[in-house]
Amino acid sequence: MYRLYDFLPSGNGYKIRLLLTQLKIPFERIEIDILQQESRTPEFLAKNPNGRVPVLELPSGQFLGESNAILFYLSQDSPYFSEDFLEAAQIMQWLFFEQYSHEPYIATSRFWMSCLGKPEEYREQLEQKQAPGYAALKVMETHLSTHPFFVADRYTIADIGLFAYTHVAHEGGFDLAGFPAVQAWLERVRSQPDHISIQQETNP
Amino acid sequence: MYRLYDFLPSGNGYKIRLLLTQLKIPFERIEIDILQQESRTPEFLAKNPNGRVPVLELPSGQFLGESNAILFYLSQDSPYFSEDFLEAAQIMQWLFFEQYSHEPYIATSRFWMSCLGKPEEYREQLEQKQAPGYAALKVMETHLSTHPFFVADRYTIADIGLFAYTHVAHEGGFDLAGFPAVQAWLERVRSQPDHISIQQETNP
Repeated sequence: MYRLYDFLPSGNGYKIRLLLTQLKIPFERIEIDILQQESRTPEFLAKNPNGRVPVLELPSGQFLGESNAILFYLSQDSPYFSEDFLEAAQIMQWLFFEQYSHEPYIATSRFWMSCLGKPEEYREQLEQKQAPGYAALKVMETHLSTHPFFVADRYTIADIGLFAYTHVAHEGGFDLAGFPAVQAWLERVRSQPDHISIQQETNP
Repeated sequence: MYRLYDFLPSGNGYKIRLLLTQLKIPFERIEIDILQQESRTPEFLAKNPNGRVPVLELPSGQFLGESNAILFYLSQDSPYFSEDFLEAAQIMQWLFFEQYSHEPYIATSRFWMSCLGKPEEYREQLEQKQAPGYAALKVMETHLSTHPFFVADRYTIADIGLFAYTHVAHEGGFDLAGFPAVQAWLERVRSQPDHISIQQETNP
């Protein structure tokens, strides 16, 4: 059985919970409290030398890190990826966009404000995250104004990857009011079969 | 023919030049001077709404952004990727590591110091990049101490992706003296057939 080393508030962990649930793949979830530095213990670093959740332990005992690489692995040969080379690359393009241009601003702001609960302590850094975070939302809005989903007009891991932190962007101080296409897409993602929320520990 | 929108000093652009050269795929290179904001013109934003180089224009006229997604696209069905699902996911794991934990520190420092030539103006930010940059190098050192390459004991796009900014880390103020396994791996990458340097505009 798959074993997921995870932190429940993590959007990166949620991506994997959501895909595993939609693929109807059973898994064991092991909570790693990153606020207690549990991802930096020697035991955890043996699983992922980069010291981050999520990490997927395969039935073979091998470990895989990086949320979007795990999405890639689990979605192979499923309807959530694509067998077309260009569509597959477009999915990866959006997942790299998510990790480089979106997550460091929108997820990090949410972490400081809602996970650590220290908006005042991080006020200056939070202000610096606003412009690049809104720039990422604008890129998404532009694309979603003419596409129902990010790639191939259907729900793929590109949507799972970007939904994870976009749907809780308000917890990091980002207002989606000016992004109607993003809001409509969030609803389309929520209406997919077997959708679960970020707080759910659901295990199929 | 492929057309690559590129900025010669860019390590992200270099990744694509290097792979195209090693695949012996001819391409036209179009210089986009990001220092002159040429990646933020309406014309360029129509190619990549995220306003970044490199962008690959396919013979079909379609555009693909994100350097590591372009590596993924071009390496399919080549010896630089893998047909094994787990090896393929491990390649993607290292490429996501590169964009999230390595590039924002090591490449950004090099950009401020060597491309903009303003080490004094960015002194405080450069200091903040040191610890996470060295942490990324340590993760690489640990892995390369027991592996000749990042995945599958052979040269893949994971190596191309990580070589691009690691081999010029000194231009961003990072000293590789304490990383002998990384240095030995840099030499293994340089000795691959059809290797080109970051300054070369080589077109096969």
